[in-house]
Amino acid sequence: MDDHDLEALLLDVRSGAVAPDAAVAQLRRLPFADLGFARVDHHRGLRQGLPEAVYAPGKTPEQCAAIVGELLENGTGPVLLTRADEQQLDATLRRCPGAEVTPREPVTGRLATLSWRHAPGREHRVLVVTAGTADLAVAEECVATLRAYGYGPRVIADCGVAGVHRLLACYDELVTADAVVVIAGMEGALASVVGGLTPAPLVAVPTSVGYGAGLEGVTALLAMHASCAAGVAVVGIDNGYGAACAVARMLR
Amino acid sequence: MDDHDLEALLLDVRSGAVAPDAAVAQLRRLPFADLGFARVDHHRGLRQGLPEAVYAPGKTPEQCAAIVGELLENGTGPVLLTRADEQQLDATLRRCPGAEVTPREPVTGRLATLSWRHAPGREHRVLVVTAGTADLAVAEECVATLRAYGYGPRVIADCGVAGVHRLLACYDELVTADAVVVIAGMEGALASVVGGLTPAPLVAVPTSVGYGAGLEGVTALLAMHASCAAGVAVVGIDNGYGAACAVARMLR
Amino acid sequence: MDDHDLEALLLDVRSGAVAPDAAVAQLRRLPFADLGFARVDHHRGLRQGLPEAVYAPGKTPEQCAAIVGELLENGTGPVLLTRADEQQLDATLRRCPGAEVTPREPVTGRLATLSWRHAPGREHRVLVVTAGTADLAVAEECVATLRAYGYGPRVIADCGVAGVHRLLACYDELVTADAVVVIAGMEGALASVVGGLTPAPLVAVPTSVGYGAGLEGVTALLAMHASCAAGVAVVGIDNGYGAACAVARMLR
Amino acid sequence: MDDHDLEALLLDVRSGAVAPDAAVAQLRRLPFADLGFARVDHHRGLRQGLPEAVYAPGKTPEQCAAIVGELLENGTGPVLLTRADEQQLDATLRRCPGAEVTPREPVTGRLATLSWRHAPGREHRVLVVTAGTADLAVAEECVATLRAYGYGPRVIADCGVAGVHRLLACYDELVTADAVVVIAGMEGALASVVGGLTPAPLVAVPTSVGYGAGLEGVTALLAMHASCAAGVAVVGIDNGYGAACAVARMLR
Amino acid sequence: MDDHDLEALLLDVRSGAVAPDAAVAQLRRLPFADLGFARVDHHRGLRQGLPEAVYAPGKTPEQCAAIVGELLENGTGPVLLTRADEQQLDATLRRCPGAEVTPREPVTGRLATLSWRHAPGREHRVLVVTAGTADLAVAEECVATLRAYGYGPRVIADCGVAGVHRLLACYDELVTADAVVVIAGMEGALASVVGGLTPAPLVAVPTSVGYGAGLEGVTALLAMHASCAAGVAVVGIDNGYGAACAVARMLR
Amino acid sequence: MDDHDLEALLLDVRSGAVAPDAAVAQLRRLPFADLGFARVDHHRGLRQGLPEAVYAPGKTPEQCAAIVGELLENGTGPVLLTRADEQQLDATLRRCPGAEVTPREPVTGRLATLSWRHAPGREHRVLVVTAGTADLAVAEECVATLRAYGYGPRVIADCGVAGVHRLLACYDELVTADAVVVIAGMEGALASVVGGLTPAPLVAVPTSVGYGAGLEGVTALLAMHASCAAGVAVVGIDNGYGAACAVARMLR
Amino acid sequence: MDDHDLEALLLDVRSGAVAPDAAVAQLRRLPFADLGFARVDHHRGLRQGLPEAVYAPGKTPEQCAAIVGELLENGTGPVLLTRADEQQLDATLRRCPGAEVTPREPVTGRLATLSWRHAPGREHRVLVVTAGTADLAVAEECVATLRAYGYGPRVIADCGVAGVHRLLACYDELVTADAVVVIAGMEGALASVVGGLTPAPLVAVPTSVGYGAGLEGVTALLAMHASCAAGVAVVGIDNGYGAACAVARMLR
Amino acid sequence: MDDHDLEALLLDVRSGAVAPDAAVAQLRRLPFADLGFARVDHHRGLRQGLPEAVYAPGKTPEQCAAIVGELLENGTGPVLLTRADEQQLDATLRRCPGAEVTPREPVTGRLATLSWRHAPGREHRVLVVTAGTADLAVAEECVATLRAYGYGPRVIADCGVAGVHRLLACYDELVTADAVVVIAGMEGALASVVGGLTPAPLVAVPTSVGYGAGLEGVTALLAMHASCAAGVAVVGIDNGYGAACAVARMLR
Repeated sequence: MDDHDLEALLLDVRSGAVAPDAAVAQLRRLPFADLGFARVDHHRGLRQGLPEAVYAPGKTPEQCAAIVGELLENGTGPVLLTRADEQQLDATLRRCPGAEVTPREPVTGRLATLSWRHAPGREHRVLVVTAGTADLAVAEECVATLRAYGYGPRVIADCGVAGVHRLLACYDELVTADAVVVIAGMEGALASVVGGLTPAPLVAVPTSVGYGAGLEGVTALLAMHASCAAGVAVVGIDNGYGAACAVARMLR
Repeated sequence: MDDHDLEALLLDVRSGAVAPDAAVAQLRRLPFADLGFARVDHHRGLRQGLPEAVYAPGKTPEQCAAIVGELLENGTGPVLLTRADEQQLDATLRRCPGAEVTPREPVTGRLATLSWRHAPGREHRVLVVTAGTADLAVAEECVATLRAYGYGPRVIADCGVAGVHRLLACYDELVTADAVVVIAGMEGALASVVGGLTPAPLVAVPTSVGYGAGLEGVTALLAMHASCAAGVAVVGIDNGYGAACAVARMLR
Repeated sequence: MDDHDLEALLLDVRSGAVAPDAAVAQLRRLPFADLGFARVDHHRGLRQGLPEAVYAPGKTPEQCAAIVGELLENGTGPVLLTRADEQQLDATLRRCPGAEVTPREPVTGRLATLSWRHAPGREHRVLVVTAGTADLAVAEECVATLRAYGYGPRVIADCGVAGVHRLLACYDELVTADAVVVIAGMEGALASVVGGLTPAPLVAVPTSVGYGAGLEGVTALLAMHASCAAGVAVVGIDNGYGAACAVARMLR
Repeated sequence: MDDHDLEALLLDVRSGAVAPDAAVAQLRRLPFADLGFARVDHHRGLRQGLPEAVYAPGKTPEQCAAIVGELLENGTGPVLLTRADEQQLDATLRRCPGAEVTPREPVTGRLATLSWRHAPGREHRVLVVTAGTADLAVAEECVATLRAYGYGPRVIADCGVAGVHRLLACYDELVTADAVVVIAGMEGALASVVGGLTPAPLVAVPTSVGYGAGLEGVTALLAMHASCAAGVAVVGIDNGYGAACAVARMLR
Repeated sequence: MDDHDLEALLLDVRSGAVAPDAAVAQLRRLPFADLGFARVDHHRGLRQGLPEAVYAPGKTPEQCAAIVGELLENGTGPVLLTRADEQQLDATLRRCPGAEVTPREPVTGRLATLSWRHAPGREHRVLVVTAGTADLAVAEECVATLRAYGYGPRVIADCGVAGVHRLLACYDELVTADAVVVIAGMEGALASVVGGLTPAPLVAVPTSVGYGAGLEGVTALLAMHASCAAGVAVVGIDNGYGAACAVARMLR
Repeated sequence: MDDHDLEALLLDVRSGAVAPDAAVAQLRRLPFADLGFARVDHHRGLRQGLPEAVYAPGKTPEQCAAIVGELLENGTGPVLLTRADEQQLDATLRRCPGAEVTPREPVTGRLATLSWRHAPGREHRVLVVTAGTADLAVAEECVATLRAYGYGPRVIADCGVAGVHRLLACYDELVTADAVVVIAGMEGALASVVGGLTPAPLVAVPTSVGYGAGLEGVTALLAMHASCAAGVAVVGIDNGYGAACAVARMLR
Repeated sequence: MDDHDLEALLLDVRSGAVAPDAAVAQLRRLPFADLGFARVDHHRGLRQGLPEAVYAPGKTPEQCAAIVGELLENGTGPVLLTRADEQQLDATLRRCPGAEVTPREPVTGRLATLSWRHAPGREHRVLVVTAGTADLAVAEECVATLRAYGYGPRVIADCGVAGVHRLLACYDELVTADAVVVIAGMEGALASVVGGLTPAPLVAVPTSVGYGAGLEGVTALLAMHASCAAGVAVVGIDNGYGAACAVARMLR
Repeated sequence: MDDHDLEALLLDVRSGAVAPDAAVAQLRRLPFADLGFARVDHHRGLRQGLPEAVYAPGKTPEQCAAIVGELLENGTGPVLLTRADEQQLDATLRRCPGAEVTPREPVTGRLATLSWRHAPGREHRVLVVTAGTADLAVAEECVATLRAYGYGPRVIADCGVAGVHRLLACYDELVTADAVVVIAGMEGALASVVGGLTPAPLVAVPTSVGYGAGLEGVTALLAMHASCAAGVAVVGIDNGYGAACAVARMLR
């Protein structure tokens, strides 16, 4: 309900077409669908510029399917299901076929991202750079989300700073990108180095990849926040989805 | 040294105007000035789209003054000195007069931001929202930095979520902003609520303000990272300067 | 043994009906039953106003069954078994049938709450609000406990602050509730927002739900403690049972 | 603006007394006063059942005085200034005389609580129990806040569990209290013991008092959350004000 | 090699019975058996007053068996194998039969303590008090170790401070004990209360039992260290073996 | 009030010398003196075998003096005031002269231990071993407390394991001691090495001495708990007083 | 591409043999092979003096095999695959036979190190000392890596400081070693003691072995950093590979 | 006492020149001087290859002076006093003049390093690289220590990775160095980048320099341990002295 709707409602009240107490009730009625176990927000796309995404962990397969179904049937725009296990994936695909599934082939122990009704394609150059091969699972979630939003990101894998020339080889792409997502575990140093090379907006994603002192991503998260490169913005550990959303906000 | 310079150098080598070993030396010569205690980076503005900023803590007043002097005399674009104490401020102003100083009047225990040679004004609407009055010191650093970059940000203070209507009163501004900086200590919840209301790019700054369980900003930092609003990008604790740089990257 | 019992005992001593050394012994005899591996406290209901609840983890199925049996046979009032796995549930139901089991249908990986001999119904309006669908497991433990105490709580699920209008839609219920339980993982911001909207006593439960920076509930716990809303009282992570007890203390 | 006001406004719209766009504007106008550096919330008392309290740290003396002045002049009900240092206390008392100041005599290094316009007296029996003498500073903040709300709490100091008989001596008061606040540093065990003795609602305040492993209150906070006594509700470290607010919510 | 042996050796050197360089070699030869993967210490009993105990985790079943075998065949006094899983237990019992095994019947997920060649019985009254039933696994390790050392400890289970009368019922035993071991998870408050009641040496064992804020025993460990009762000595989390050793040192 | 007193009281009740309700009252009257801000425990010596010690931090000088005065005038046995600053020391000595003060000469920034009415001398050999010179402040508190209890401990300073021969030089004393206190900061390794050398009861005190990774004593505390030497009992960081009490319990 | 190559390239440019834009392209072409999911660094051996090692966790078996294959076919010098599970080991051995596999026989739950094309043997005496038998898994990774680099390290197992004579028995080897690696979990004290005995370069590896307060290696890591022995250099938790690399750097 | 001394002693015993019990005593007499508050280790230089360094914090000025005096008068080789405040510096210089003092001019709030009797000069090329100007205080301690050991290290300041070309400008020096010390606060990324560029032994020193998420050096310490560059060895936070000692071990 935006300003326009509100003014229309009040005009109806003045004209007597709507009684005051009915208007009160209507002002309270907000654009979500209550499924009992979830309040599906049909307004979010409008309000945040981002489609509703359903975070699968902790929901039953049936709940996943029902929420995605509600969003597809009564909403508009892209719909995402993130971090789905096999049961959640199956139940939701049965009810809501036609999703793009990432990764295409199931990988042992890796959760899936599903997306329906992609946004029209956009021209921006988005770069997703990972420090190592093992960061690719997080990159995949980020890429799947960006694709649902209409972007065609390019992934550059395995550019860790221990071989900084591998990164410098992409110097042209880095400085001309519209946005860069850096995904790195261990000490997360890649964010600082990339941040020093490019003027593009930069979103850093710490990952839980790495040896003992990585503390499941906390080290990378802290290190990225302590980065000596200015203007590095950080999202949560392993949060490829969040990074994609941050990019979508910047480039809308 | 960009592609163009490099090609020119090589043409000079081919023509014999430059000897190969001289070219090797020149390829090694990079655009910074070595002051002994600091390597002043005259290339950063070009490379990152951000002016060099001098972080005062841990430097002697003389070092602050010398670095800022070098940047003003041999560089171009805005120059910043952040978190300067009284001695650093005095020494640097003596050598490099004409700075804009924030806060205008000294406040007990609050460090200053100084800026020289502001960038030309830009039109973007940048909003800086704080949860409480005590977050204003961080907001000031952010605003001073944005001003140096040519922005004219608007500050909305004291919108903590315990009185969410104070925030809703700015709804129009939030949804039409080009970028929003949310500055909040304690539990940092303001970032989530603002993130749910606006489609604008959003940079969250956790502050060290608050009661015992705030853990000097760590609670707000973690909470902002765990935010249920998608696409919230976070910078370090009390890092108003970093938030301004992140905005500058997004809006350049 | 309350004041009345004590005075009676002493009168018996004065009258000679009880010998002093027998009284000494009796004063030592306290109202619990020693099962060897557990000291079942028949006095707790009287003393705390709360029935004894048996926390299943770490106990063998036989120990669970024996303790619940002792409480049902020799005590009065409601009896609870919380966080029971399948073996504990089966063994206890075999010995002590007639329990209300939550959830009604077993859900993979979710522990059960069992309750016997519910308290008579009470009229108070207790609201249990969750930030997301994945917080429902904790809400169920809270609701099952409240029901055992005679309350008929109403659950409002999935009101996370990223879509604050979903919460405002329940404004009437929030301001008229006798007590509100807020259950939220991630950044736990819901507690602050609800605390700012309602004058009701408010118990916040951090949950271990959420992405990487949630630190298994510690982020939400700290954030709720740093809440900018006054008078938010917090219980332990995922402790739906504890929240119900806190409510029971307030409304007794 | 409550339901009643809203309906009146709509009736005015229907009658033509108020134009629709004026009504839109008015719906946006919310009951706070914008002082530039603070948005003073005149509605909070109504909404939360608690008066606005001004948290002094991080505010200039002038800001403290201005906010308290606004609340006294344009609001109703009790007003509090918490954790004021000497400058803040002086500046605010100059502008807003007549406050009750706690502690009555200044104590080195201890911040003050000021209160104006106390609520009418209430009859409830509120008990504030401290583990040690050093917890009294937190107890004072709690008591000052409760007094502003109209309560006349009784303080029982120095009941640490290392001499549990000192606590048992107050058994009668504990079991008949309407609410109990337990204030304890070190290992915070007092909350568990009191929670096992009384059926009253119980708010536990961890304090930063204690030897090395107390970790400035974090140990007590965690211990109180891990309490084996059911229904213990916890507020933040040293947060005597918050404990008083939690009690006020329970007993309103 | 004690003073006596050393003097004997030197007398032999003086008499020429041993050549100086042979003496040098012998002084280097210390009383352990090198099995390649382990250096079995036959001197420890003499030196520490405690028998060698083999900590099973991280060792192969064959290594466990070989080390225990070496200790039984070439050493004297009690021998312990702690935290053995089923394979380690089987392999070691096959090679070294006749152990006392705790628990007597295997319990799912619980590691075993094995002991051989118990020390002669001692008269001391050692009390092992647990806060809850779930702490019994740690108590078992402590008791098995004490029994190997010749003590006949008495276990009092489930005395948590939420029902402090259950503890007071054992007051006589507490004050007359020669040593008390307190085993408690959650908030660990039992150590403080027991410490306040008895003059006996008191060893506190934090356990990893408990709800979310217990942090796998860290909360109890910190709380026990912050204990307001004087002279509480603490061992590591779940370290029933260590507590028994501390008692053995005290009572030797 | 012990069993004997209780039986006497009940005999008086039977004989009619004491009315039942008077007996109830008397049973409630416990042996402490309520000074308002403190409940002075005259029974602790009897109950714990340890004298009451007053922990100065957080108390006003007047409160320190009053509590010590109460203990000296109406109690028996040794009395201690620990961690007193200059004001607390002066105020207490004025009211209660004749204390032994440690350190004898004031040292900048070091708090004092005062003791009155020492216990009669005991014969036990107690050894206090420190890793470094900087641990001596903690050792002093431990020694002052032990002296109040009647012990004449011997201090061996600066035996850190980086020069393990300095420790081995005291081998005879270590193996014949009745109790050993090890005081060490940094990595706390001294506790393990000493624990491996002596069969004596061993109390380890982590100190906040050391470089950056010492984390103000937390590293030493954790390391001592993870000690590979069996039966090491640990007290809190810098808690020399607590170590002395633990020794007193063991040797009583 | 080293100085020599660069000068050659420029001479070719001067002679016209290479066109400037071709030279620009070539200067950008860096010595790695892009496999899509990995950028294999053929230059690392030259640059770091260390062969490329492939860290298996997070990579698919096919990725492991492909990267190792690329390194063997197109590179020179030793190649390592570390922490491989059974699938990764099988897939890689199928494609790249002839590896030395550690451990020789698979051990339940232990990951493998594979190495190909060992460096020629070196004479240095490298000592790998472990505190306990359970640290041997980390020692194996260290030894396998050292062997690939051409060293023939000697392992001395189970020298924990609780029996310091077991270490002193190796005194001669310690003082004459060219480098010492100390591998220890629990409290990590072995590093300090060894550091105090030998002048050799010393690399300490904290392991995740040990009881509750070991915090999965964090305690040992912190303790080793707080070591009182000077010049102890530490690598990450369980990082046997990193310790071997640090040694290789020192002895190259 | 080395092997040679020991054999000599035993020959004396055989010849009767020394009685056995006198030899026992002598074997116990180890080469340190007991000053009461410190055991000065005259053997350390021989044993560790490093001179004794006196760590000033926690020692009185007189203790500092006495220990340094003892080392100079009765020992040989370099002597260091580290982290001395003004009083400690004055007292020690008065007793032991002729020290080299770092920094040469006192800087507010910076502790000093003093050194006497430097070792003869060595030829090795040691590089000390700092990320920022503010890391220079730590670099100074490292350089002063290296100078005492006879090295003439070269400092390259302010090479943070946000301007990686500043580091590449020193490429030649990095690859030809005999040892490199990297000193960096914030996210510590410099260690990884330098580690990827040079084959030299590399010691990384995390510093407590930096913004909020630096956690006083813990972030840099963890990040350096999680470094993706192989063979990076880390010392404690701000521990310039320790880094110098690690280098001295490597290059001896």
